[in-house]
Amino acid sequence: MSTEQPTLTGFDPQSDATAVLPGMPAAVSPAGVPNPKADIAALDELERHLYAHRYAQIGMTSYGATIDPAAATADRGEALAILAEEDQALLCSPETGALLDRLAASNALLNPTQAAQVRILQRDRASMVDVPPEVQAAFTRLTTEADDVWRHAKAAGDWNAFEPYLDRIVAQMREVASYRNPSADPYDVWLDEYEHDTSRAFYDRFFSQVKDVVVPLLADVRASTRPFGRSPFVGRFDAGRQWELARELVRLEGLDERKVFLTTTEHPFSDGLTSNYAIIACHVQEDDVLANVYTMLHEGGHALYEMGVDPALNYTSLKGGTSMGMHEAQSRFFENYVGRNMAFASRLIEVMSRQFRGQLGRATANQLYAAANRVEAQPIRTEADELTYPLHVLVRYEVEQLLMSGEATASDVPRLWAERYKSYLGIDVPNDARGALQDTHWSGGLIGYFPTYAFGSAIGAQLKATMVREGMDFDGVCASGDLSLIHAWLRDRIWRFGRSRDTSELILDACGEPFSPTYFTDYLVEKFSALYGL
Amino acid sequence: MSTEQPTLTGFDPQSDATAVLPGMPAAVSPAGVPNPKADIAALDELERHLYAHRYAQIGMTSYGATIDPAAATADRGEALAILAEEDQALLCSPETGALLDRLAASNALLNPTQAAQVRILQRDRASMVDVPPEVQAAFTRLTTEADDVWRHAKAAGDWNAFEPYLDRIVAQMREVASYRNPSADPYDVWLDEYEHDTSRAFYDRFFSQVKDVVVPLLADVRASTRPFGRSPFVGRFDAGRQWELARELVRLEGLDERKVFLTTTEHPFSDGLTSNYAIIACHVQEDDVLANVYTMLHEGGHALYEMGVDPALNYTSLKGGTSMGMHEAQSRFFENYVGRNMAFASRLIEVMSRQFRGQLGRATANQLYAAANRVEAQPIRTEADELTYPLHVLVRYEVEQLLMSGEATASDVPRLWAERYKSYLGIDVPNDARGALQDTHWSGGLIGYFPTYAFGSAIGAQLKATMVREGMDFDGVCASGDLSLIHAWLRDRIWRFGRSRDTSELILDACGEPFSPTYFTDYLVEKFSALYGL
Repeated sequence: MSTEQPTLTGFDPQSDATAVLPGMPAAVSPAGVPNPKADIAALDELERHLYAHRYAQIGMTSYGATIDPAAATADRGEALAILAEEDQALLCSPETGALLDRLAASNALLNPTQAAQVRILQRDRASMVDVPPEVQAAFTRLTTEADDVWRHAKAAGDWNAFEPYLDRIVAQMREVASYRNPSADPYDVWLDEYEHDTSRAFYDRFFSQVKDVVVPLLADVRASTRPFGRSPFVGRFDAGRQWELARELVRLEGLDERKVFLTTTEHPFSDGLTSNYAIIACHVQEDDVLANVYTMLHEGGHALYEMGVDPALNYTSLKGGTSMGMHEAQSRFFENYVGRNMAFASRLIEVMSRQFRGQLGRATANQLYAAANRVEAQPIRTEADELTYPLHVLVRYEVEQLLMSGEATASDVPRLWAERYKSYLGIDVPNDARGALQDTHWSGGLIGYFPTYAFGSAIGAQLKATMVREGMDFDGVCASGDLSLIHAWLRDRIWRFGRSRDTSELILDACGEPFSPTYFTDYLVEKFSALYGL
Repeated sequence: MSTEQPTLTGFDPQSDATAVLPGMPAAVSPAGVPNPKADIAALDELERHLYAHRYAQIGMTSYGATIDPAAATADRGEALAILAEEDQALLCSPETGALLDRLAASNALLNPTQAAQVRILQRDRASMVDVPPEVQAAFTRLTTEADDVWRHAKAAGDWNAFEPYLDRIVAQMREVASYRNPSADPYDVWLDEYEHDTSRAFYDRFFSQVKDVVVPLLADVRASTRPFGRSPFVGRFDAGRQWELARELVRLEGLDERKVFLTTTEHPFSDGLTSNYAIIACHVQEDDVLANVYTMLHEGGHALYEMGVDPALNYTSLKGGTSMGMHEAQSRFFENYVGRNMAFASRLIEVMSRQFRGQLGRATANQLYAAANRVEAQPIRTEADELTYPLHVLVRYEVEQLLMSGEATASDVPRLWAERYKSYLGIDVPNDARGALQDTHWSGGLIGYFPTYAFGSAIGAQLKATMVREGMDFDGVCASGDLSLIHAWLRDRIWRFGRSRDTSELILDACGEPFSPTYFTDYLVEKFSALYGL
């Protein structure tokens, strides 16, 4: 899109009632007379078009990583870029801006859902409207190219190949941030993008509390002599049977199979087109059955959230999870607080041994619990246990800060990475492929995203603690294998609201108090002290 | 879309240069001064947006019938309807109409591709612009509902349940046709929709020639005492191995696997998102391995056509096959003229016996050829051999004519159906489920589509005859298992042009003469006389 966006200043509401998209009611009231009813109809029309594009985009992106033939990548990218242009043009037009402003001003006439739609649309619009389209397009092109460069660099373990791209990504993310909010720190702008109302100030405090507990706890665990084996879960587990197991886990987790498309991919993910359609994409490794079990539970947690949003929000911008942090709270809830819970281990081992009678017919819940909770300081984030996981995230958070502030450039990253892994996890980074090249996020322009992983884990701990405090027999529910009480609690307090409530408001209402990382650190201390006899 | 389309008469080209879609260059030259360069840029922008929507729509429709969970049907339908609205608004706007008119008038300045784009866009626009959006929307809603009613009616064998819907569909198709072309016969309007420049006059002549040859030939075949068995292809063939076989057939047919997504569905189909992405959806039946082999070859033929279009046309309205008839010509070419050819049978039996060594290890090419070409008068179109197939289509063509002319109503259809199956195929229709309810087309509002199946078969025969006349060793190519000479011929004369040339022009250029059904009838006489010793 090379056309300049007209500014709101230059917009004369009486000059022209042309619809923003053909077929849409004109967003402008005739002759400037306020007409809230027409404005609400225009809001509905705006949402219908955004809905159709969103449905197409989520599908295309998800299929792209799963079923699409490789030869189609460029064609899909072009189609996605054009749809994104249409969305930006639709949302950023002066007519839409004026419409949303008028609706916000006549807030008393809106029902709560409409008021939330206006608020979220205004926020979405604000994040785009001041970024020149050519700057946004340049950033999109750079990340598309960088993603390809990163893939090759990781395979070759060649940091130098990726290094110049990371510097350019940082520079462009600083530039985009400067358009979005000229007065804010650029890293804060991106932290806020992935988790509304967060900033370095917030995460500094959060990670400091986590680090103060986890680093010494990890040192104690590593000094413990209590032996933890992974047998009988080591060995080759047939891929076909693992897919059967994955389908059983969908059922065990309580997902409605009629709404799930389960498929295969290199990097697992989940998404929801609407509350009626979840895609879960996993990756079966024959030599690591446990990885698949916990990946499935994790992605299933994301899907539960998407499926749990009030269906009335499907065709609105309030559809889906409210933030990355709250999404991770749900996925890590089912992966860890349910999935790595001793009480749930007996249900899990039943399902697993049904598929692998020969290998796991005599495996016990205790063995599964021990294997799934063995603490191991190793260099890969996605393979980390619950205790070391937040330290992996912390390393990334600290390196991102230095990059975005200009205190470090890409050439410093391998050294910074190694220093922090040594300091927090006590290990040496073997190479860049298993070091700073291991994750895809930076190449995709997602600097600021990582901290939500740790934040989500901590939210999950607080949600669980609240359930227990309110009297839920959490372990009993897990032991029963019927998770519907947990679903009902989360649906009632979190899921159903979609994007209509922000994370902080959801936590306050769900837990009766603001977010506190203490539940997370207490949980880690209690669980791993018991496990390692500290 | 309930907004009235402004008419071209009321359009003042100097009043307003607002873009039709935000982000698109305004289609109107400033102050009415002709500016072909700006018009060509506007054409490119129009095509970009249509491309993105088409990519999304073909994908969504294809995934809908294959991988999508059932619960998502309504949400997908809504998204598709909105995208269709956007396309219609974009293409039917007065600005687009004026743009296309100006470009058509400055034809000398366009390259051949651009000239073809303008011609096809004008044709696409003309088929929509005069149909009131509410009439179109009512038709879409009716066919969505009718499709569901038909499914249940077929399962229950209950013609009465479907009957009122068929009457309404006929009435609405007559109404839509009257808007499209008030002076034309409504059935002719729909025949032209699926195959440009065809009409009852054309098909009456075509089917009369086919019927005059096939009906007596079939009588002779049925009177023949030559025995034709289907062994060793009768029995249960493992579904997993059949999918392996399907993948081998993709390779044998010469498709580029890197561009193919092979998946499962109830009603087989193929489509192409671009020349880089074909979807082939098949249905494995364990008790009918031959059905799967020939369905794969058929759908693969469609895919070869889509993949063979000049990649330069991918992002234009010229993408894809030029008509349904020409598409069927390609699919039935690979299903029949290649797939049911004696020379190809030896390659096919190799591939089949590789997957089913126990069952087919000793099967011969002669056995396969005999089993795949056994003539059987039976009531199901999709199970028909080459000889009876056009008669199944003829029945439908005649019944459609009577419905669209008002000479018959839906209540007459079972009787008309039974009379014609008796007269042309010499068999009794067992029930409505295996009679007039067997096909999905009418419930989807596709009256006028069936004749293209027979037309396509006949085009394929003419193409093959031309290859042979020009000196291609057709049987030798088939026997070699390397079909690239056939691909090259079809790509050069048919595939690469996409929609830039119409069927009649393609046939004339490819064969050096206009379409003639004689090649088809000659082929049938020669092949089945030899097979049945007539």
